[in-house]
Amino acid sequence: MHINQKHYRTIWPDARNQSVAIIDQTKLPFKFEIIQISSLELMVKAIGTMQVRGAPLIGAAAAYGIALAMLEEVSDEYLDFAANKLIQSRPTAVNLSWAVNRMANHLRDIPAVARVPAAWKEAADIADEDVKQNQMIGQHGFELIKTSYQNKVMNILTHCNAGWLATVDYGTALSPIYTAHDAGFKIHVWVDETRPRNQGASLTAWELAQHGVPHTVITDNAGGHLMQQGLVDVVIVGADRVAANGDVCNKIGTYLKALAAFDNQIPFYAAVPSPTIDQALLHGGQIEIEERNADEVAYMQGITRDGQINTFRIMPHESVAANPAFDVTPARLVTGIITELGVFDPAQIIAKPAGNTMPTS
Amino acid sequence: MHINQKHYRTIWPDARNQSVAIIDQTKLPFKFEIIQISSLELMVKAIGTMQVRGAPLIGAAAAYGIALAMLEEVSDEYLDFAANKLIQSRPTAVNLSWAVNRMANHLRDIPAVARVPAAWKEAADIADEDVKQNQMIGQHGFELIKTSYQNKVMNILTHCNAGWLATVDYGTALSPIYTAHDAGFKIHVWVDETRPRNQGASLTAWELAQHGVPHTVITDNAGGHLMQQGLVDVVIVGADRVAANGDVCNKIGTYLKALAAFDNQIPFYAAVPSPTIDQALLHGGQIEIEERNADEVAYMQGITRDGQINTFRIMPHESVAANPAFDVTPARLVTGIITELGVFDPAQIIAKPAGNTMPTS
Repeated sequence: MHINQKHYRTIWPDARNQSVAIIDQTKLPFKFEIIQISSLELMVKAIGTMQVRGAPLIGAAAAYGIALAMLEEVSDEYLDFAANKLIQSRPTAVNLSWAVNRMANHLRDIPAVARVPAAWKEAADIADEDVKQNQMIGQHGFELIKTSYQNKVMNILTHCNAGWLATVDYGTALSPIYTAHDAGFKIHVWVDETRPRNQGASLTAWELAQHGVPHTVITDNAGGHLMQQGLVDVVIVGADRVAANGDVCNKIGTYLKALAAFDNQIPFYAAVPSPTIDQALLHGGQIEIEERNADEVAYMQGITRDGQINTFRIMPHESVAANPAFDVTPARLVTGIITELGVFDPAQIIAKPAGNTMPTS
Repeated sequence: MHINQKHYRTIWPDARNQSVAIIDQTKLPFKFEIIQISSLELMVKAIGTMQVRGAPLIGAAAAYGIALAMLEEVSDEYLDFAANKLIQSRPTAVNLSWAVNRMANHLRDIPAVARVPAAWKEAADIADEDVKQNQMIGQHGFELIKTSYQNKVMNILTHCNAGWLATVDYGTALSPIYTAHDAGFKIHVWVDETRPRNQGASLTAWELAQHGVPHTVITDNAGGHLMQQGLVDVVIVGADRVAANGDVCNKIGTYLKALAAFDNQIPFYAAVPSPTIDQALLHGGQIEIEERNADEVAYMQGITRDGQINTFRIMPHESVAANPAFDVTPARLVTGIITELGVFDPAQIIAKPAGNTMPTS
């Protein structure tokens, strides 16, 4: 997608395959900084400190981490060491270990002398496959937009950041939006700020602004009212996991938007790579919801009027906070699941096994 | 209610009726500062800068503002001047003009020489009536709590600040909670942080902490998930206006919590002084929702780790925000309206004209 009218991916190798460039996402939305990653150690740090984040992007970053490691030493031992280091950098990221294992399994079958070019080729393939997959999600979502488009501004509400910053390019929930926008359709996006980590107000708003998509940031509280007022035509969110019965696990607060959409007869879609649909998961109630550090609620990051990025506490020191990170939206509230393979009725997922090219976490 | 184990109201005159003490609410939750207000001018400033806020408290503050003015000059002209100054300090506050007009009408019938003691007496009456009214809301709400209390911790979710800081004492939505807590019932409160102005995370959390009521701050996104998990027994919120058909207008985001409560068969109550019920308002759709300054979404106030209270921007400078301040919860989602006169089924409000002692805004 575009930044300052120039096309970028979130990660790309230099022309000689000696280093990898990333956008430092910890500085967004206030500063756009590209970092050159030139060693395994720096990639482990970039993943661990969330300079890169989002399941698909983390997978691609880890794949390039293996490629960087091969520049340092091509032995089996160092391959195992690098794989282990990368997997430990974000232990719960399913996509990361999937990408690392794909790289390691591929390289072990290749003679040591040929491993460097093979590693860079395989990492590039992983990145390209993510882009292709997201483009297809965008196409299928765009078909939905076209069917209800009425030649006036279409208002789409989204929650959290399932945009291109979380992937190599295009994003998942935002891919249909970029596709429609680039095709000349008039789209306006309501961006939930998405407390507590504010990925909407920071990352989603930033990437939409850079690509030139009209949008407005709102508090997480506002979406229901906007739907009552007829100001939302469709809701599209990403998802971390989709159960076999169509229940959607996504960022905390998604369920509230799904309830409001249902109450106002507004279609509600989750857009995901098909491997996000977990056939082994019978229903959303089987998902254990991660309880994250309460400091994410108690503290926020922002920039002062004189340009200092700082962290500040927003509640009394005497009070505690709780921070459940995800919730489960029951399938009965979900209009459809948009994937690279097409759009599924959540009630029909069990009958349609999905592909297995790339898991997400 | 209690601060550091000592009982306070939010406003009180000194023993000789020469000045009025208030808690500077712009410093909460980080600093507890009492300010002595000794002139009409200072009271106008205290109301205008929101050192006092909350409809009932503003009313009482304005009444004391008239009393302070009478110390300065007892003439009819100065009474009119003072009334006008106070009403202009927060032009949209219905409760403020109600209290000022009550004071002015009362004093005009009294000879100038007797106006000073009469003004202080009438202001004290207005404050006492607010306390009494809120105590009765607390009693009726407590009866509801008692009927479903099961001798284990009862979890109550609330949104925004309808606590004692918004009134002279007890609050509205929090009054049943304080009443039950003080009676020895085990209550735990889920406090919605209530973006964009964060009255929950700041004011509600602070006053519950000071009074010793167990509570946990959560993002506005979390309540639905907690309800799904069986961790919420009842929802109690305040309201700015209740229509004759039982529709409840309250802080933005209330509607989303009402939807979630309904979806999980959890009772949802609004607690209000009965004059908040507006018989002239046929349904919530007739309420024009205030669109407030977008900077309330884009900027936040907090305290840095080194103790500086500062304002921070939390979204890109390239993006805009929208800020609808209230939403309307349809009566079909409301279990009951708790007032000082008793608890009403929202469907029965039209048949039961409410009292008209004190409006709220």
